[in-house]
Amino acid sequence: MTQSPHTAANLPADTTIPSGSVGIVSPEFISFDEPLHLVSGKVLPRYELAVETYGTLNADRSNAVLVCHALNASHHVAGMSADNPKDVGWWDNMVGPGKALDTDRFFVIGVNNIGSCFGSTGPASINPDTGKPWGAAFPMLTVQDWVHAQARLADYLGIKKFAAVMGGSLGGMQALGWSIICPDRVGHCIVIASTPRLSAQNIGFNEVARRAIITDPDFHGGDYYAHNKVPRRGLSLARMVGHITYLSDDDMATKFGRTQRAPAEGGDFHYGYDVEFEVESYLRYQGEKFSTYFDANTYLLITRALDYFDPARHHDGNLARALSHVNAGFLLVSFTTDWRFPPERSREIVEALLENKLPVTYAEIDAPHGHDAFLLDDRRYHAVVQGYYDQIARELGLPERAKTTGVLAA
Amino acid sequence: MTQSPHTAANLPADTTIPSGSVGIVSPEFISFDEPLHLVSGKVLPRYELAVETYGTLNADRSNAVLVCHALNASHHVAGMSADNPKDVGWWDNMVGPGKALDTDRFFVIGVNNIGSCFGSTGPASINPDTGKPWGAAFPMLTVQDWVHAQARLADYLGIKKFAAVMGGSLGGMQALGWSIICPDRVGHCIVIASTPRLSAQNIGFNEVARRAIITDPDFHGGDYYAHNKVPRRGLSLARMVGHITYLSDDDMATKFGRTQRAPAEGGDFHYGYDVEFEVESYLRYQGEKFSTYFDANTYLLITRALDYFDPARHHDGNLARALSHVNAGFLLVSFTTDWRFPPERSREIVEALLENKLPVTYAEIDAPHGHDAFLLDDRRYHAVVQGYYDQIARELGLPERAKTTGVLAA
Repeated sequence: MTQSPHTAANLPADTTIPSGSVGIVSPEFISFDEPLHLVSGKVLPRYELAVETYGTLNADRSNAVLVCHALNASHHVAGMSADNPKDVGWWDNMVGPGKALDTDRFFVIGVNNIGSCFGSTGPASINPDTGKPWGAAFPMLTVQDWVHAQARLADYLGIKKFAAVMGGSLGGMQALGWSIICPDRVGHCIVIASTPRLSAQNIGFNEVARRAIITDPDFHGGDYYAHNKVPRRGLSLARMVGHITYLSDDDMATKFGRTQRAPAEGGDFHYGYDVEFEVESYLRYQGEKFSTYFDANTYLLITRALDYFDPARHHDGNLARALSHVNAGFLLVSFTTDWRFPPERSREIVEALLENKLPVTYAEIDAPHGHDAFLLDDRRYHAVVQGYYDQIARELGLPERAKTTGVLAA
Repeated sequence: MTQSPHTAANLPADTTIPSGSVGIVSPEFISFDEPLHLVSGKVLPRYELAVETYGTLNADRSNAVLVCHALNASHHVAGMSADNPKDVGWWDNMVGPGKALDTDRFFVIGVNNIGSCFGSTGPASINPDTGKPWGAAFPMLTVQDWVHAQARLADYLGIKKFAAVMGGSLGGMQALGWSIICPDRVGHCIVIASTPRLSAQNIGFNEVARRAIITDPDFHGGDYYAHNKVPRRGLSLARMVGHITYLSDDDMATKFGRTQRAPAEGGDFHYGYDVEFEVESYLRYQGEKFSTYFDANTYLLITRALDYFDPARHHDGNLARALSHVNAGFLLVSFTTDWRFPPERSREIVEALLENKLPVTYAEIDAPHGHDAFLLDDRRYHAVVQGYYDQIARELGLPERAKTTGVLAA
């Protein structure tokens, strides 16, 4: 199961593949027919995973890296979708030939979480028992469940141990979860802009988003598919409030400030509730766009899984004890202006790892972009990640990186 | 027009008036029949103001203090409502005999803003042109309009110059507005937990709240009164998101943390979207309670007035120039964990005042309670305010404060 750049027949004639891109990619859909027993006590009778891979799995299957996604992303981590080459993977600046996670050396796997809405089994999928969409009957999932579902993917691919499991935000929680649940299958764990548990404020914002969706009359108790409706108002509000928490105050000041959008004569306000400021226009647009492609039940489910994540919970709140049997090496990265999962939260993980005498590299990147910084192209940040992968590659005896490539080359 | 503690006939027999309280109070309703020309270009043909006063106006009318309220407060600043003695004024810990704002020395005026929903003319009032509630036809208001409306109240009361105009948050903006618009009528200006203008993030949160209300199907374009509806879902969401911004992350961690509400057997989660965490229960309760008494059109109007406030706007963004003709002395107070209007925002005002060589006292109070700290009883904060009022009293030759009273007494 390898995938290399190819040109599909249906691509526009003028499609060019930028250097450093993994090229044109398509997902595979892999079915798992054994029931998945969930943390909630419920059972998912079977599931399908949407998967993309980049690079080549080496002979001893030691160079695989699993990339876990955050709330609204998918298996499409890098490259250009065969269906639509403009649809570039969400972490394309991180993953590709010569990039921080170098697909010339590593075999990279992107997988859509179950419960999501981008191809893996989720609330909008058909419930085999009823022949109709799962809707409200889809079982609640947790980070642990995602790890279990993904462990079967690793089995399917014949990967006993990942060179690394990596993710940002919720993806970072999954990477941390992997290192705890499958300590012998994770060589390294790369946790970016993440947290060992949500704060009351984090849960509060999630709850506002969920109430917006659930109280939208078009939600129909989660079974809106049957009513041919989408709770777009609620989903749009959820996205707007989420979006504010992904950006820093300073970043919003720089991007939008108090700039007016289409002011009245003489630069005056319109004195009404239509858009007056650029920031309103931006948030409305983000909310509306999101509500056209994201599934409301998935939003509920994933925010709830975020709320539940707390590895220290069954260890009297002691994170070090929760990590006591972990074997991986760790890289943690946080961003100074991330007020959703601020550096303090990453430092809590660092301290718990150090208490267990585990090898830890920690970088706190001074970046103005808030939580979203983990998705952005920042040379210092990418250089840290690349340096860490160089070290993994040396450990595993993988071929040297080409001297002319790399984040700091050029 | 003075008002002193009295016991009304309809009070419960066991009503006791705590020491330091101004006692039982009732509002007066004062009508102004001259049209009010608004910043928007619209005209409010007439309006009524709900007013409470505490203490006694002295012979030369020099001891009057105007207290301006924030988004969801009113003229009921101190004391116990005659209608319901449990309804204690929103700044009762600040205003009363012997308190920081000492009603034994000062004549204190609380006034409900026009556009609000606690007794002054607002969107829920009857539009004299139609005989029906104003609803969506109620004109948009700005901080400047509130100052103009209140200046007529000062005229009515025969007060040429206030000893001080004081407020927190939006009330602080009004106090600042007073000092700019009526420079000769403001002896001192006390601006607490406020800002010279909203940031993009502030506007963003306001916009989420407004979209929640406006997209609620029960809003009916602002004319829900005629439909016998209230957009409670939207109002409740607006309050929830607002409430999170009033508290600090640390304060929420201390108050709620990740404490579960009525956990399942063995302390487990319920794995659903009903309340799991205390913080969810608290926010839902706050939202629902608010939606039973607050008017949705008022919420829209006041958040919009907050967005618009920006005295530097007509001076190329130069706040010092906007304050160049101001005559007042200033006290500014900010709170370290207030992330809605953080200390930097108050310091901007301080710097602009200093540039104009105006007398400024500035206190940055190290308090864990976020924006809401301005409403809470904190001895250091109240001592600063009391010290400032002592200085005002000395300037005006008011009687000495009784030695046994005061924030730091006992």
